[in-house]
Amino acid sequence: MGDLVTFGETMLRLSPPRHTRLETAGSFDVYPGGAESNAGVAATRLGADAVWISKLPNSPLGRHVVSDLRRCGLDVDVVWADSGRQGTYYLEVAGAPRGTDVVYDRADAAVTTATADELPTETIRDAKLFLTSGITPALSSTLERTVGELLETARDADVRTAFDVNYRSKLWSDTTARETLETYFPLIDVLITPARDARNVLGEAGEPAEVATALADRWGFETVVITCGADGAVAAGDDEVVDRPAFETETVAPIGTGDAFVGGFLARRLDGADLGTALEYGGATAALKRTIPGDVALVNREEVDRVVEGEHATISR
Amino acid sequence: MGDLVTFGETMLRLSPPRHTRLETAGSFDVYPGGAESNAGVAATRLGADAVWISKLPNSPLGRHVVSDLRRCGLDVDVVWADSGRQGTYYLEVAGAPRGTDVVYDRADAAVTTATADELPTETIRDAKLFLTSGITPALSSTLERTVGELLETARDADVRTAFDVNYRSKLWSDTTARETLETYFPLIDVLITPARDARNVLGEAGEPAEVATALADRWGFETVVITCGADGAVAAGDDEVVDRPAFETETVAPIGTGDAFVGGFLARRLDGADLGTALEYGGATAALKRTIPGDVALVNREEVDRVVEGEHATISR
Amino acid sequence: MGDLVTFGETMLRLSPPRHTRLETAGSFDVYPGGAESNAGVAATRLGADAVWISKLPNSPLGRHVVSDLRRCGLDVDVVWADSGRQGTYYLEVAGAPRGTDVVYDRADAAVTTATADELPTETIRDAKLFLTSGITPALSSTLERTVGELLETARDADVRTAFDVNYRSKLWSDTTARETLETYFPLIDVLITPARDARNVLGEAGEPAEVATALADRWGFETVVITCGADGAVAAGDDEVVDRPAFETETVAPIGTGDAFVGGFLARRLDGADLGTALEYGGATAALKRTIPGDVALVNREEVDRVVEGEHATISR
Amino acid sequence: MGDLVTFGETMLRLSPPRHTRLETAGSFDVYPGGAESNAGVAATRLGADAVWISKLPNSPLGRHVVSDLRRCGLDVDVVWADSGRQGTYYLEVAGAPRGTDVVYDRADAAVTTATADELPTETIRDAKLFLTSGITPALSSTLERTVGELLETARDADVRTAFDVNYRSKLWSDTTARETLETYFPLIDVLITPARDARNVLGEAGEPAEVATALADRWGFETVVITCGADGAVAAGDDEVVDRPAFETETVAPIGTGDAFVGGFLARRLDGADLGTALEYGGATAALKRTIPGDVALVNREEVDRVVEGEHATISR
Amino acid sequence: MGDLVTFGETMLRLSPPRHTRLETAGSFDVYPGGAESNAGVAATRLGADAVWISKLPNSPLGRHVVSDLRRCGLDVDVVWADSGRQGTYYLEVAGAPRGTDVVYDRADAAVTTATADELPTETIRDAKLFLTSGITPALSSTLERTVGELLETARDADVRTAFDVNYRSKLWSDTTARETLETYFPLIDVLITPARDARNVLGEAGEPAEVATALADRWGFETVVITCGADGAVAAGDDEVVDRPAFETETVAPIGTGDAFVGGFLARRLDGADLGTALEYGGATAALKRTIPGDVALVNREEVDRVVEGEHATISR
Amino acid sequence: MGDLVTFGETMLRLSPPRHTRLETAGSFDVYPGGAESNAGVAATRLGADAVWISKLPNSPLGRHVVSDLRRCGLDVDVVWADSGRQGTYYLEVAGAPRGTDVVYDRADAAVTTATADELPTETIRDAKLFLTSGITPALSSTLERTVGELLETARDADVRTAFDVNYRSKLWSDTTARETLETYFPLIDVLITPARDARNVLGEAGEPAEVATALADRWGFETVVITCGADGAVAAGDDEVVDRPAFETETVAPIGTGDAFVGGFLARRLDGADLGTALEYGGATAALKRTIPGDVALVNREEVDRVVEGEHATISR
Repeated sequence: MGDLVTFGETMLRLSPPRHTRLETAGSFDVYPGGAESNAGVAATRLGADAVWISKLPNSPLGRHVVSDLRRCGLDVDVVWADSGRQGTYYLEVAGAPRGTDVVYDRADAAVTTATADELPTETIRDAKLFLTSGITPALSSTLERTVGELLETARDADVRTAFDVNYRSKLWSDTTARETLETYFPLIDVLITPARDARNVLGEAGEPAEVATALADRWGFETVVITCGADGAVAAGDDEVVDRPAFETETVAPIGTGDAFVGGFLARRLDGADLGTALEYGGATAALKRTIPGDVALVNREEVDRVVEGEHATISR
Repeated sequence: MGDLVTFGETMLRLSPPRHTRLETAGSFDVYPGGAESNAGVAATRLGADAVWISKLPNSPLGRHVVSDLRRCGLDVDVVWADSGRQGTYYLEVAGAPRGTDVVYDRADAAVTTATADELPTETIRDAKLFLTSGITPALSSTLERTVGELLETARDADVRTAFDVNYRSKLWSDTTARETLETYFPLIDVLITPARDARNVLGEAGEPAEVATALADRWGFETVVITCGADGAVAAGDDEVVDRPAFETETVAPIGTGDAFVGGFLARRLDGADLGTALEYGGATAALKRTIPGDVALVNREEVDRVVEGEHATISR
Repeated sequence: MGDLVTFGETMLRLSPPRHTRLETAGSFDVYPGGAESNAGVAATRLGADAVWISKLPNSPLGRHVVSDLRRCGLDVDVVWADSGRQGTYYLEVAGAPRGTDVVYDRADAAVTTATADELPTETIRDAKLFLTSGITPALSSTLERTVGELLETARDADVRTAFDVNYRSKLWSDTTARETLETYFPLIDVLITPARDARNVLGEAGEPAEVATALADRWGFETVVITCGADGAVAAGDDEVVDRPAFETETVAPIGTGDAFVGGFLARRLDGADLGTALEYGGATAALKRTIPGDVALVNREEVDRVVEGEHATISR
Repeated sequence: MGDLVTFGETMLRLSPPRHTRLETAGSFDVYPGGAESNAGVAATRLGADAVWISKLPNSPLGRHVVSDLRRCGLDVDVVWADSGRQGTYYLEVAGAPRGTDVVYDRADAAVTTATADELPTETIRDAKLFLTSGITPALSSTLERTVGELLETARDADVRTAFDVNYRSKLWSDTTARETLETYFPLIDVLITPARDARNVLGEAGEPAEVATALADRWGFETVVITCGADGAVAAGDDEVVDRPAFETETVAPIGTGDAFVGGFLARRLDGADLGTALEYGGATAALKRTIPGDVALVNREEVDRVVEGEHATISR
Repeated sequence: MGDLVTFGETMLRLSPPRHTRLETAGSFDVYPGGAESNAGVAATRLGADAVWISKLPNSPLGRHVVSDLRRCGLDVDVVWADSGRQGTYYLEVAGAPRGTDVVYDRADAAVTTATADELPTETIRDAKLFLTSGITPALSSTLERTVGELLETARDADVRTAFDVNYRSKLWSDTTARETLETYFPLIDVLITPARDARNVLGEAGEPAEVATALADRWGFETVVITCGADGAVAAGDDEVVDRPAFETETVAPIGTGDAFVGGFLARRLDGADLGTALEYGGATAALKRTIPGDVALVNREEVDRVVEGEHATISR
Repeated sequence: MGDLVTFGETMLRLSPPRHTRLETAGSFDVYPGGAESNAGVAATRLGADAVWISKLPNSPLGRHVVSDLRRCGLDVDVVWADSGRQGTYYLEVAGAPRGTDVVYDRADAAVTTATADELPTETIRDAKLFLTSGITPALSSTLERTVGELLETARDADVRTAFDVNYRSKLWSDTTARETLETYFPLIDVLITPARDARNVLGEAGEPAEVATALADRWGFETVVITCGADGAVAAGDDEVVDRPAFETETVAPIGTGDAFVGGFLARRLDGADLGTALEYGGATAALKRTIPGDVALVNREEVDRVVEGEHATISR
């Protein structure tokens, strides 16, 4: 079905209207949110043929996730479960000094019981690239095993694999995370990691370029991307190490920035862009994402092009 | 603190705006909903001094429940838990033939671990009347035991007890419900039950007046109230059996009707009304409730008086 | 400026969103509402050249009234006051048995100090018809005098006058109302009154046709219209007595129905329609009004025509 | 891609919030609306594998149509045009006597230039059933030709064809419509028509069963369905003539009822249901549609089953 | 009717709620927008007696434009057309790097067929100043001729004329624009132009003061105003050349800034202010406009005074 | 009932949605607002046991105030009045240069007739600290006397007293304010005043530390706090003079900042914090308040702790 297949949990995010509080809001806005589907949406908006696979409860809530992702252009291929919850999270975004308040309510989600046997692995086998992230194995021991099996499935079918470290301290310890991820690393072609996770989880401190090279050398990754937030990103691969600054942005919705970067980067790599260009598209997609409410990058290729090309945001009329 | 103390779970209800669908709505309205707090609100709106006791997660969601109930006038005395979820449920209300769609997401709520030891039992001991319902023991084996202990606490302190059967087939079987409830019955003074539950759970079929008398005779309840929806209600007690018809109403929000009845009935019994008058106030509170969005009866004593007195709903200007 | 000039108070109406309660709503919808401006809007929507004159506080609230009335097509010619409040009222509309709850907050409105000297009386002198209602003199002793002077101004300038009895028991007693209104009656050409006010205030009971004739005979009114709500209306004048039934309507917003009738009736009288036709247009305007939120009849001539002609409300496509 | 392929125009419908007016509303709700995509959505909600093909402007408005239809579960395969408008229509729905007000603004839509050459005809060739309606050829002479060519494409590929007469008097005269449609009839297997269009456009008056049989005989249709609004529907085919009553419904949104019927009927025919069953599913889908804002039937198979089976709309809890 | 008469197209602007996207928003906010009515509103808010004349479709959409403009205080004198569309445009405003996205849908608007014969030219003859802009002749060849005729009408009646160059590259080429505008220049007293249009369309580059003088000299304009966005404005006339800086502003809604400047400038010129003062009021009106959603400057004279006088925006309480 | 008792007027604030205007908004958001209840809410959110006492009209509007304050966690003990208005105020908040527009409509509020006799003085006698502000005596001569009597009640019962000068030039002159306040000063333990009021009303100019010391010396206050907006605050007492800077904040809602400071400061003083710590908590509560719509500081103790401790507003996930 798709060139890019992503696998992971997508939650329903419930947020009080802008500036108001979770404790007293009379309504919550509803958005889909999940690292791998966020990345899938970003990739599809840039022209990639992407599919998200997962397991969802057969309920209006599970169908809400599918409806929202399809609306964004992402294809979905999900297993419907008769038991298990729809994961949710409650997010309040506010200006300083209030910051962001988050309540996860994702335990016992249907996806936590997803096995490789029941997932549409043929969709992975027919793809060019398979993506998942460090959040997924942290959700259950079943998923820890499933992620490994899906990566093997991809490897066996000569499908390339990408992995975003995406460490979540609320889900597991850095030690456990490292041990688990290291079992996956031999199966991974493209590793993407925030500099912070590289340091705290993978134990690689130093300049981003050094970290990228060190990780590539140690584990034999074909490509390593280190994201440094407002400081841009660095990639090692194709016999080069390149870095690109981040684009300035007026932030309305910070959640999902990293996933937008991943989706933008991979979409361009899939259509053959060099590392530097792909970093630029990742960064531009991420910058645009921060102006858009919700967790997904509802961008279009043309506007990402314009950001990359540095065109001023003026109105043509 | 209060004359009436109620104990049970209160969930956050999430509903799409009127007529829209859970699957596609971009926002959900948020309401507090729980049989015993619904009844407590109704009672407090009619002038009773009521308190709801429970256990909630120490999170913006748990605090949301407290904020909403306090806004309605109900006092709360809750234990804050560091673990356990905030129960939620998703409700879509629509006209025929679409009907009502409900998704419960209440497993592992903080309240399911509430023990009599940690709950504010002194609040019960200082009250005149303690109310809980058949939903509460159905939520966990801990709560099954806790309900029994709280009823004993009340009995030991010469506090009268009321119990709303409120059978929920999604939570337990009718057989288990019956076995459990029968262990409580010797401790209960006022039993309130839908005619349907009297028949299907308690095994008492027949005319409502017969059912009320039979239950009172069998278990020694001081008062038995049988609610029959649009057909009104019957009560046996005070050496009489009385019945009252329901009031006509333009239904906007059916959920919580029965709880409004219970709160209205008990509030008037607490201030000495006879059975017939209390049934009328229960019915009028229930009829008004159905015109008000959400699960609680945000009524005022004056307007309930007017409904009982049969005044036309005209505008005085 | 206009053929029809109306004078009176226009308040800002603040209402909780449909079905919700004044006590807990997080926002109030804002509408302009006043008997004489309501009638003016209805008349202008049917093609009359109408102006509303009044006195308003020079504040965003006073300007809100003007903005809203101009938006509806009504022209305004107001005196801006440096002191005095903007009258408001709070209205909750609900289904039975809840009914309608209203809180007036109109004391000390700027209009209560309006004198004939400061009002644009030349606008009245240039008109064909001057309309005010029994609400206006009830608001203050100044206004009681002003209404009399404006009616004399009209009479002196050969401008015909119309008066809607519109008794408000919250503002004055029926005895005081009667005494005051009777001082105006010699100056009035067209008297419009609900049957209820004719009976309770003016002391004319009986069949509407008899009441109309009796009032016309007693006071020498050129035309008398008796409105009977869902039972239609009767008019005596032009040497005939005619009656027309009301049109069926799905009521969303009952406030302003009578004013819509008055505006529709007078608009058609101004362009020469006979009494029966004018009653039909009054009734059709009133029926349409009840489907439209707020106090004013935002109708168009074409749709009123269709209602009068009995065309089914189907979609042409 | 799909078993059912539908072709036609989809507009953006802009509607003032419930009860308010097009003339003064401060915002318009946005919905997708088009006979063939409406039917496609209904079919896909009942389990059919459906695709809508069309031509849309390459703009946020054209993309809005695709996003909304994908959200509803329908697959789309569209040609993106660099010129041509996105068709819109403005709809105000209200209670009697106000009725429904509609303003079409669909001239020069991109789809009006769609030729068979540029449309994805392979999608039709791979399908089991191709559906279009009488609205499409009425939009432009190009489309009149295109519809004929697409029907021939289907016929050549042994794909069955369905056609909904759907006469629109604002688009063409009944005479022109008849002449055009009759050129298509030899290519059509399943004809669906409102009784009103059968009479006024196709010239077949009489009892619905007679009309169905007469049309089938005259043109050799395999199946003919006559829809009679609240009076149900009749079908002739499979050597039988069957009729089914309509289901009662509380109407919130009447637009799209007929398309929901078509989609529900065809979905069940595609999976082998007999005529009577398919009529029941068409009727149940239509009845549910009327409770859902917007033009499309956002239903689920389970709830349609329940309506067909006559289950009461009660809450299971 | 008015001292200032403006002529041009007013569209309905449809915008997704703040921060959201045209492609996925479930509702669009509705605003009136048109260069000449925008300027008219600004002038009327500052106390000028202004009228906007135009041609609109006789539909709820055309009436929406009139309702909205009247609400802002502007008088309107329009010809109602039985054919022709209501022009619309879709606007999404966002922070950098997303910028502003606009889709015009104004082809075949009713106004494009407006001839001088049918427009209320007596309204122009009775005015002190007539304003139109370079957008209007770009809309159709009919309007190109009409603009010329209206300018001649004004000249013949000794009514002064003002013209805002307002070049729109989506409507015509700079060459065509120049040729057309130069046919009007002999009839124009006050020319207002962005520095950018002076350079690109009129071929006058250089310092704004030089450009103003050069244009005045070349064409004999009585007054020339060059607007330079955040760099302020320059005017030549009354035997002086003056410049004023722009006021700082927190931008919420940039569209209509230039029109607000024009309206503020002309309103003060009409009541006799000198060039420098008029530039200040233009600038202050424009700065306030940018804080107000929609295209029109819903300001009041008092607050513009305060900005001109440099008073801090503090709360008096 | 509470450790902290506050007394004063609470109004209903009516505000147009963000960025829109009082003059044209179609709805107003509703918030409770009053200096002393604002401070009470802030104190209760930080853990104090606080009660607000006052007099309110027995209407849905008066009950709205109670509902809203209880929702925020504040206890209330009010006298219900059969006459007197519910005070309101209309507030429009906007960016520069538009600023903030306020219309007070508080004359004849029920509270203006509140006497010490009818207020729940036992609640004061049982408290540790009684707070009121300079707004309250400015509202009526009755309240001027009542404030004095309540301060004496507190003094007689050995309850400490706090007073926020809070000068309002729209309510009284600085001379009258000074004369009145000086009659209270002998009864006051903790004086809190903006530096501006100290200078303009109390006649104490100079550096904040000097002002604090001078006021303490002159009147024998136990503690004096001088608030200096963005420049922080200074306190004299406990034999020390301390100052603390303000915290940076992204302002969404400036109204109520000072009250939040007072509540935060007093809550910490009540539980024994030293002056510097209490100033920090006052400042942090104030900074957070500015990010929250409405007049009250809907904060939690944990987030105030985090601001005081200077933790970055990052998301833990």
